[in-house]
Amino acid sequence: MKRLTQFSLAGACALAVAGTAMAADWSYEGATGPDNWGSLSPDYELCGKGLMQSPIDLAEANARGDVSVFTAYAPGPLTILNNGHTVQANFAAGSKLTSGTMQFDLIQVHFHTPSEEVMHGEQYPMVAHFVHADSDGNLAVLGVLFEEGAANGELQKLVDAAPATKTAPRTVGGVTIDPNGMLPDDLDVYRFQGSLTTPPCSEGVNWHVAKDTVEASAEQLDAMRAIMGDNARPVQPLNGRLLVAPAG
Amino acid sequence: MKRLTQFSLAGACALAVAGTAMAADWSYEGATGPDNWGSLSPDYELCGKGLMQSPIDLAEANARGDVSVFTAYAPGPLTILNNGHTVQANFAAGSKLTSGTMQFDLIQVHFHTPSEEVMHGEQYPMVAHFVHADSDGNLAVLGVLFEEGAANGELQKLVDAAPATKTAPRTVGGVTIDPNGMLPDDLDVYRFQGSLTTPPCSEGVNWHVAKDTVEASAEQLDAMRAIMGDNARPVQPLNGRLLVAPAG
Repeated sequence: MKRLTQFSLAGACALAVAGTAMAADWSYEGATGPDNWGSLSPDYELCGKGLMQSPIDLAEANARGDVSVFTAYAPGPLTILNNGHTVQANFAAGSKLTSGTMQFDLIQVHFHTPSEEVMHGEQYPMVAHFVHADSDGNLAVLGVLFEEGAANGELQKLVDAAPATKTAPRTVGGVTIDPNGMLPDDLDVYRFQGSLTTPPCSEGVNWHVAKDTVEASAEQLDAMRAIMGDNARPVQPLNGRLLVAPAG
Repeated sequence: MKRLTQFSLAGACALAVAGTAMAADWSYEGATGPDNWGSLSPDYELCGKGLMQSPIDLAEANARGDVSVFTAYAPGPLTILNNGHTVQANFAAGSKLTSGTMQFDLIQVHFHTPSEEVMHGEQYPMVAHFVHADSDGNLAVLGVLFEEGAANGELQKLVDAAPATKTAPRTVGGVTIDPNGMLPDDLDVYRFQGSLTTPPCSEGVNWHVAKDTVEASAEQLDAMRAIMGDNARPVQPLNGRLLVAPAG
């Protein structure tokens, strides 16, 4: 019961964030695009003025070390939505991320094509952002970069079920999604503090990006891009933040 | 020759920082004390408004991992001064600190009684701050916390030569100081980004604080405190910065 209670609180916090983000229309181009997010709404001010914004260029790492992070994700029913900006799968309680001494519940995973995080300025074709919250509403994200290669079985379940346009969450009967299938075998991470990459660009997010990539087929990447379009916020300045690269 | 040139540049930058700090009188109590540093001079604005200030409480670590840092310090002639705020020894070229992919030259070590960095709010009797710069003027500090115990041979050389009042740097004939004698055997560090702990409180400083302490005798700690008084800036808020604690 304790776990369920914690999850409900965390879910409520995640929803509160999502609710704020609907305060003004925003997009990835033109007058409502990333360059102007900060002026679209007082709630979005951090998008323009924040000094700890995401995404970043991972090649700007200024420290090296193996930071402790563990996932304990469980398979569950597939609940999927399109919020008009991304394809997202919501997870039931029971999947955990442990980062240092902190523990978070996995709330949802969503995608960006191309990747938001870059390496030496280079984007990957896609990134998955696994979003986690703790019972105090603190957020942690684990980013996994996708390269073109073999088809990914779990991603295919999302491709098959993803609504082409904005749609409320729908649980797909008879389909079980295993988030572990979209993780690399070894979880060596880049670690930094940052923000949501969409309005309201809230800061204080504990960021982790896996060094090892996972593969998806050209057809899968094309399918995701066809639904979402270019939904990658440009990289933001590090502004002297600590960015730890894996030692391995 | 290349090393000498790099050191000169680094030294110049360190001096430039010190020069700015003399723009207005400051102290550790009353009207010119830490609470008011930010308003004593426009140059000290960051002391009051900065969001990445030092020192911090190490117990607020929000990540865990062994961050790469190596020292290659060399013994050299003892050059000592009292700048009115601290006892400081300046080092000749040839001592290096490697942090991740960055390399810095050791410029000076100075002391604070009690320690500036705290653990769960608790101060140690003293801390040594080894200050390093690279050829671009980027700064790195290695903090070493002192506990009361056995006398420290290298510290004794400083105690014996330390001027009781503000005095220009003086090279002490016939005395060789080995900075390695004031380092713990294992250099596992807390890693974060922060600032100078004295005006102008410049940010962008690469901070490292050793997990393991070193010992100094009660007489040595008393002697340093007698000269410097209480010269510890109070801890500053972490403000969501990444603070990596050693995994060991």
